[in-house]
Amino acid sequence: MSLVVHKYGGSSVANAAKIKNVVNRIARARAQGHQVVAVVSAMGDTTDDLLKLAHEVSQRPEGRELDVLLATGEMVSCALVAMALNDIPCPAVSLTGQQAGIRATGLYGKGVVAEIDPERVVRELESGRVVIVAGFQGITEGMDVMTLGRGGSDITAVALAAALKADACEIYTDVAGIFTADPRVVKDARKLDELDYEEMLELAATGAKMQPRSIELAEMYNVPMLVASSFEDVPGTMIRREVRMEVRDRVRGVAYDMNVAKITVMSVPDRPGIAATIFEPLANAGVSIDTIVQNASQEKMTDLSFTISRNDLQKAMGVIKPVAERIHAKGVNFNDKLGKISIVGTGMQFAPGYAARMFRSLADANVNIEMITTSEIRITCIVSQDQVHEAVRVLHRSFRLEQNT
Amino acid sequence: MSLVVHKYGGSSVANAAKIKNVVNRIARARAQGHQVVAVVSAMGDTTDDLLKLAHEVSQRPEGRELDVLLATGEMVSCALVAMALNDIPCPAVSLTGQQAGIRATGLYGKGVVAEIDPERVVRELESGRVVIVAGFQGITEGMDVMTLGRGGSDITAVALAAALKADACEIYTDVAGIFTADPRVVKDARKLDELDYEEMLELAATGAKMQPRSIELAEMYNVPMLVASSFEDVPGTMIRREVRMEVRDRVRGVAYDMNVAKITVMSVPDRPGIAATIFEPLANAGVSIDTIVQNASQEKMTDLSFTISRNDLQKAMGVIKPVAERIHAKGVNFNDKLGKISIVGTGMQFAPGYAARMFRSLADANVNIEMITTSEIRITCIVSQDQVHEAVRVLHRSFRLEQNT
Repeated sequence: MSLVVHKYGGSSVANAAKIKNVVNRIARARAQGHQVVAVVSAMGDTTDDLLKLAHEVSQRPEGRELDVLLATGEMVSCALVAMALNDIPCPAVSLTGQQAGIRATGLYGKGVVAEIDPERVVRELESGRVVIVAGFQGITEGMDVMTLGRGGSDITAVALAAALKADACEIYTDVAGIFTADPRVVKDARKLDELDYEEMLELAATGAKMQPRSIELAEMYNVPMLVASSFEDVPGTMIRREVRMEVRDRVRGVAYDMNVAKITVMSVPDRPGIAATIFEPLANAGVSIDTIVQNASQEKMTDLSFTISRNDLQKAMGVIKPVAERIHAKGVNFNDKLGKISIVGTGMQFAPGYAARMFRSLADANVNIEMITTSEIRITCIVSQDQVHEAVRVLHRSFRLEQNT
Repeated sequence: MSLVVHKYGGSSVANAAKIKNVVNRIARARAQGHQVVAVVSAMGDTTDDLLKLAHEVSQRPEGRELDVLLATGEMVSCALVAMALNDIPCPAVSLTGQQAGIRATGLYGKGVVAEIDPERVVRELESGRVVIVAGFQGITEGMDVMTLGRGGSDITAVALAAALKADACEIYTDVAGIFTADPRVVKDARKLDELDYEEMLELAATGAKMQPRSIELAEMYNVPMLVASSFEDVPGTMIRREVRMEVRDRVRGVAYDMNVAKITVMSVPDRPGIAATIFEPLANAGVSIDTIVQNASQEKMTDLSFTISRNDLQKAMGVIKPVAERIHAKGVNFNDKLGKISIVGTGMQFAPGYAARMFRSLADANVNIEMITTSEIRITCIVSQDQVHEAVRVLHRSFRLEQNT
């Protein structure tokens, strides 16, 4: 008998009708002879509604209490799914993060899974039940609830799949899988049948909706993942280590992000330690830096630019201005109207010419490139926000992603 | 330093403004030098909304899962109250029933408190925090959530007060205390300053809104209770063992219940064991019997009448009809348009004439009495539902309850 872990996001359990649909899918997997563990998120906008409530009663809601509050959303949905299953009847039991043995550590609101003791999950499975687990939450050493951050239900699902040595972790969501590009932007974007973890990580990190930590975790424990629609019965995208060699030698998809801001610190003295002086206070303030570019130095001075999420711009400027004064930089400016586009594919590292083709295609379309950054399996360009969609379409066409070759 | 347990019902925490009001009350008690534990119910109609959700996904929601679902309502409100307190700032921590050490046993949906291990509550109090406890819930031996039934937050509060040996248990609600009669029915009804537990039990059981089990529990552990308004700063009603002798020698209040049905089994053979034959199947079906009257027998036959809550009528008739056939009774009929009125007072048992005065007053007002039942501190008449309000007013006047003598 095989063991599968399902995960259903908030849009898949948003109301009674959708919950019944999820329940049928779970019951069907069980009827096919699988043991099933299903991780569920909070219904629809529940988490946002609870956050709003918190801000109505408190100017700065305390982390521990906010986690107690938010964790209730997943308890509600997992109880509802379990009772709907029992009603079919299909024997089921709901478990909180604590009951499922998910130990969390770190900071409230962004806990990480320390370990999983799946004793109760295993016991319930062996007694013939489907196990519905509240996603997004664990229990601390002090026996307090701690949430795993936005998208934390993906983490719960993958971590449980790893701890249970499940045969697969199936992520059901409101899209049918991973596409060569955002179908809302590129009309003939094509669903990918397979991806490897690193490609998925790049596509997720630059626009797709999966929690990147969960993909790293799946790779680390070699958990095969399926991303598929909870509404349609169509094959999704399989993510695993061994992708067939013949699909690897080309660009797999185009990702984008509209939410980029660039900060430039002008005329910085070009001496050892200066980058640390600038980036340490930003890290301490919790600002994630994406791309860093340091221009060639002139007379021992340099311009240092970096990109961040636009949401962090105000915080970052507040941190960076006094630092710039202290190191006698000429000034600080920003551009908050940027986006980024990336071409992603494991095959790129074995074949030359991808970068040149990307730059040429963008130039032909009059898209100006502000910054460039690359990884082994990705080439990213920062461009003006209002050209992002057109750039995605240009690249999708240029690399013939609409064709399943 | 004294230790008080507060309890706030659903209407007292129904929205952000009301939560802030509760928070100010708690902070004031702490500023006065008290250690404070506050038990909170779910916000407003949350429990009903969750029940509705359950019935949308399931025809017959399973007990264990329903309890997981309903228990979230109290977790939400206790987290909100704790974060609002921390915001003032007044150091506070929310605890679930499990974290507060409340062990429950029995049936899902109607658990009873088996024991309380208040170790964590004590530890948090000693570290200077206010402790907010989710009412209505405990944890079973198997580490599952179990709710304590409607009004279960009162039980939580009293049980915690007993376990902590608190100096008082203060029940804050949307009424200013216990009145001589329902102020919506009797204009000059008067708030009572003091009651003893038994009087409170009779007044609660026959109409007032406190959970009777909580009053019995308070009496058993001799926990002084205050019932007061969470909205106004006016003295409430104190409930405790030693009520001054001079207030005991009269009727304390008039209670009523509009929700009564009577079932009569006609011409039952009058032989030993017949009552058990009738009432055992009702008990097994979970129907609570209130008053039983067996008319004088004629030729070894008797009419047997009993009253139940109107909500149980359909279930009771389903049980009783086949029983009546089996014992060759002549038939079964019912009256579902009844109510009951009671006069309550510890003093009644020491002084004669209360019953006569009650019957005379009702007769003068043309109120027909269907059945009569008495306890040591209560006399109850079953009357037609449409005469209940008038009967309450007549008795309130007849016993001069509007006068504070």
